[in-house]
Amino acid sequence: MSSQPIQTLQLGGATIPGIRPVFYLVGTVLLATAIMMVPPLLVDLYVGNGDWRSFGLAAAISAIIGGGLMASCRGALKGGLTLRQAFLLTPTSWFSVAVVSALPFYFSDYGIVSGSLADAVFEAVSGITTTGATVISGLGEAPPGMLLWRGLLQWMGGIGIIASAIAILPALGIGGMQLFRTESSDRSEKALPQIRQIATAIGGIYLGLTVLAVGVYWLAGMAPFDAVVHGLTSIATGGYSTSDASFGAWEDNGIQWFATAFMLSGAIPFVLYVRLVAGEGRALWDRQVMTLLAFVVIVAFVLGLWLAISGQYALEPAFRHAAFNVVSVVTTTGYATTDYQSWSNAAIGIFFALTFIGGCTGSTSGGIKIFRFEVMGVMLRAHFMRLIYPRGMFPRTYANRTLDDEVIGSVVAFFAVYFCCYAVLTIALMALGLDFLTSSSGATTALSNVGPGLGEIIGPAGNFGPLPDGAKWLLSFGMMLGRLELFTVLVLFLPRFWRG
Amino acid sequence: MSSQPIQTLQLGGATIPGIRPVFYLVGTVLLATAIMMVPPLLVDLYVGNGDWRSFGLAAAISAIIGGGLMASCRGALKGGLTLRQAFLLTPTSWFSVAVVSALPFYFSDYGIVSGSLADAVFEAVSGITTTGATVISGLGEAPPGMLLWRGLLQWMGGIGIIASAIAILPALGIGGMQLFRTESSDRSEKALPQIRQIATAIGGIYLGLTVLAVGVYWLAGMAPFDAVVHGLTSIATGGYSTSDASFGAWEDNGIQWFATAFMLSGAIPFVLYVRLVAGEGRALWDRQVMTLLAFVVIVAFVLGLWLAISGQYALEPAFRHAAFNVVSVVTTTGYATTDYQSWSNAAIGIFFALTFIGGCTGSTSGGIKIFRFEVMGVMLRAHFMRLIYPRGMFPRTYANRTLDDEVIGSVVAFFAVYFCCYAVLTIALMALGLDFLTSSSGATTALSNVGPGLGEIIGPAGNFGPLPDGAKWLLSFGMMLGRLELFTVLVLFLPRFWRG
Ligand SMILES: [K+]
Ligand SMILES: [K+]
Repeated sequence: MSSQPIQTLQLGGATIPGIRPVFYLVGTVLLATAIMMVPPLLVDLYVGNGDWRSFGLAAAISAIIGGGLMASCRGALKGGLTLRQAFLLTPTSWFSVAVVSALPFYFSDYGIVSGSLADAVFEAVSGITTTGATVISGLGEAPPGMLLWRGLLQWMGGIGIIASAIAILPALGIGGMQLFRTESSDRSEKALPQIRQIATAIGGIYLGLTVLAVGVYWLAGMAPFDAVVHGLTSIATGGYSTSDASFGAWEDNGIQWFATAFMLSGAIPFVLYVRLVAGEGRALWDRQVMTLLAFVVIVAFVLGLWLAISGQYALEPAFRHAAFNVVSVVTTTGYATTDYQSWSNAAIGIFFALTFIGGCTGSTSGGIKIFRFEVMGVMLRAHFMRLIYPRGMFPRTYANRTLDDEVIGSVVAFFAVYFCCYAVLTIALMALGLDFLTSSSGATTALSNVGPGLGEIIGPAGNFGPLPDGAKWLLSFGMMLGRLELFTVLVLFLPRFWRG
Repeated sequence: MSSQPIQTLQLGGATIPGIRPVFYLVGTVLLATAIMMVPPLLVDLYVGNGDWRSFGLAAAISAIIGGGLMASCRGALKGGLTLRQAFLLTPTSWFSVAVVSALPFYFSDYGIVSGSLADAVFEAVSGITTTGATVISGLGEAPPGMLLWRGLLQWMGGIGIIASAIAILPALGIGGMQLFRTESSDRSEKALPQIRQIATAIGGIYLGLTVLAVGVYWLAGMAPFDAVVHGLTSIATGGYSTSDASFGAWEDNGIQWFATAFMLSGAIPFVLYVRLVAGEGRALWDRQVMTLLAFVVIVAFVLGLWLAISGQYALEPAFRHAAFNVVSVVTTTGYATTDYQSWSNAAIGIFFALTFIGGCTGSTSGGIKIFRFEVMGVMLRAHFMRLIYPRGMFPRTYANRTLDDEVIGSVVAFFAVYFCCYAVLTIALMALGLDFLTSSSGATTALSNVGPGLGEIIGPAGNFGPLPDGAKWLLSFGMMLGRLELFTVLVLFLPRFWRG
């Protein structure tokens, strides 16, 4: 199934990948990025902050490079993309966007990120990958243009990853959405217009949910600007905030409960919303979604009960803090209402484990993702059954589909590569002098695109600013690797990929 | 293949498992354990240490229980064992042996373990599972009977796990040896005598290697008693020593190089020695063995080179310390020549990762084991190939065999369950107040049966004595779980197993 090309692209038997069609598409993305720099430019101009110049300069550079690439590669896309070109496209465009997105930070007058390449790139990568780990402390005093830019980066990144997961990765056999493809969307003659329709619908729903979140946050008492930024970073499960205390700064009118709901809404496959809007009433009654909800409800309930019984909070705050922070980490949003590490020593271990989980595939959230754990669960169950009934036959099915070798192989490979990357990244961070907890949680929070790590430095009450530059580069790479489902990036390191 | 009964046992369609045949076999094992208590009894009697009484009492209790079980269940074995009885046998006998083996510690006059159930059971379980984690500091002053008993426990445990891996676990579909069964050893009429022959041969080889190690250690300058104990715990990849400094106390005459070789010899499948002795010259030229050797050589070489270049050691000591400690952790022996945590911050991460690896299946070593990583590697390679060549066919073969769904399923299940157990154990240890590094490395070192953990408390320079009793119980359970390849124990927790 993964060998099936996406309908707009044509697979050919390319030898060395012609780079021009990829450059053309990268050009369009860079141009779009330049346009996204206009709102923060206007905001800084409006409040009289000099950073409007850095946005102007960055937008000009992005537009010139993007426009130049488009002009010089015009018409190159006509023949469609080969499989190798499609493989090249995803990492190339994300890395290019990350680089130009770092420019406003780099050019800024704002001391913390200004002139530091490592900080600027880290903050941009953390934005575009919707990770939300930040090097900035004192967000309350940061220029509004920069805060808006951070929000917009995550919002772009969120829709970008949904688009990739639905339109590009399935053709590459990566990301797991191919497992959920329905027969009707396969190989059909009307596939192209249907895909355009779906893309438009998803864009509309993404925008609609964002506007809804902004409105709710505003009505619940947030200042309009804060509401906009948090709206942008909630649906994107991004986690960038306008306060060092994250949602700890807004506690009234049930705002944290609303945020919990919006984070969850960003962790659900967006095609399900399309089917819901198209009139399929039970679209959200989906195996993966139900498992995600059941999991967070159980974990949050047990944790909340314990917080209440141990007397750390009254009943409502206990369940609120538990639900918010569990949902925040499992959906890989990364907001926090409090430093949950202080709840108990075990909480550190529990939140560390939650950092691996992730939301649903086809959503804005990262991590290993629910369906992979479910496929693993199916395999585990089959193994236990075979131990007890050695002569029995136990078909491996998930959501009424038989799991073929290809699906199982890709899930197993993902787990294996994820844990390899985690181990290598952890050891590399330790080699730079970081302690075990900071290194381990830093590696996972980057690969899963969660945001905060654990420990004194990068925990929910800290930030990534104090880390050495080398660690920031490593973590930036880790965030990209995780966001692009590992294989899209790693395939490019295989000599065989380039030999054709 | 796993549905095939071992030749001495007869699978029946039992409903509720009749417990008597299991009790009979447990009785024989307890009786054997009682006999093993005689040498330490004699040693303590010889040096005039009062602990001879505790060995006498413990031996009497073991013999009475063991003999009683055998007498009351005589003849019960006639019908062979059902699959459920075979599943019950392994954990039941190991847990029973662990309990009676703890008695000499519990009854001892030696203050550190005397009268503490948690300490006595921990030390016994750590012995019988060949883990080698100890609660005792000041080993140099410990009574010789106790030091010999610790060595004998590991030696018994070592041959016990080889016997289980070859004779029992394959029939249960656990442990991976079924993957390496040759056609000729399957289903053959002469299988029973052949298995007896192989068992005798393996016993002889195990004894021979032990005697060789004792002799070499003695010739290299160890006192005879120390040579005996280290001989017993080298081939068993056990790691109990007679000095708090472990092999750091013996540095001359290449003794650490010899120990490195003996640890490796214990991590190799013992059936290969049988084939070697039977005249098959290239028996050790085995895929799993070669991978193990290549892995430790590369890791030790890089680490040694770095130790030399960074000026921490001269050339020979650099490679010696690197080789010894890498081999010690990878073979899951757990000796140390020095506190390798002081080498660099990265060393902590590297040795943590090595704790998961393990030696070959069918040897005395624990851990995840080499062949599982190789099977995972085969799956990874197939996945990458399929990404690049979506229309290609990539058969998954290992050591010239096609990996069927059952083998892949059992390897994947092992990884999944191992990491689940690791996560649960880590969080449970953190809930008892231990820090992240101590909890993580404690969980892994227990599950992999390595011995030392990492950090200030349980690192190679420390011991498990200061841990709270709850942690000792958890870790004791973890050691058993890991030693018995997880599933032998976990199956008993399934209600379905008991329903029949
Ligand atoms: K995030
Ligand atoms: K050991």
